[in-house]
Amino acid sequence: MSDHRHGNSPAGPLPAFEPPYQMVVFTSTRTEGDRGYGATADRMDELVKELPGYLGHESARTPGGLGITVSYFRDAAAIEEWRSVGEHRGAQKQGRADWYEEYTVHVGEVVRSHGWKRD
Amino acid sequence: MSDHRHGNSPAGPLPAFEPPYQMVVFTSTRTEGDRGYGATADRMDELVKELPGYLGHESARTPGGLGITVSYFRDAAAIEEWRSVGEHRGAQKQGRADWYEEYTVHVGEVVRSHGWKRD
Repeated sequence: MSDHRHGNSPAGPLPAFEPPYQMVVFTSTRTEGDRGYGATADRMDELVKELPGYLGHESARTPGGLGITVSYFRDAAAIEEWRSVGEHRGAQKQGRADWYEEYTVHVGEVVRSHGWKRD
Repeated sequence: MSDHRHGNSPAGPLPAFEPPYQMVVFTSTRTEGDRGYGATADRMDELVKELPGYLGHESARTPGGLGITVSYFRDAAAIEEWRSVGEHRGAQKQGRADWYEEYTVHVGEVVRSHGWKRD
């Protein structure tokens, strides 16, 4: 998925969802140049929204450094469904071929969450 | 904690740890200016490393936009211990007073993880 972010608020962090839910943390460093990454990322953004168990995702990338994307799903079945999508599998394969120097994936169940906003 | 990152590799993502472990995702937007943030963040970086159950943390921030920090702990007791540290509580309070426009915290148990690196 892209370094763009999606949610109810165009500027701020996604809200805390109602636990339990799943989160997938994807941390990465990129290769140089776009190499088709942007277009595929946009397509993945569209595709993932079609999944009923998808709650949202958000990304940040320090220029020239680490990128972190966190994706939120209602349950483990929704993650499995997303992993099984053919176009997504193709994008993952291309990620290893072209886009990423290194990445780590952490999958966890959220047991509590909260948000805060300045008055 | 700061937008710097810490771990075995100075450039890449932190590695996958051995599950189960805990992760805390902190997503935020900042106020303008430093307001003492950098110095306190550096101090928090030092302090958290003293906790036996601390595994690592890493951050990314899109300039002018979203920041994401992910902190990894061996177990829930280590998170509780970190939450109870007085200096950390003071920093959190100052965060709400001075540094953040908005933030969300998601705490979860990691059930699986893996890493990949280009040959």
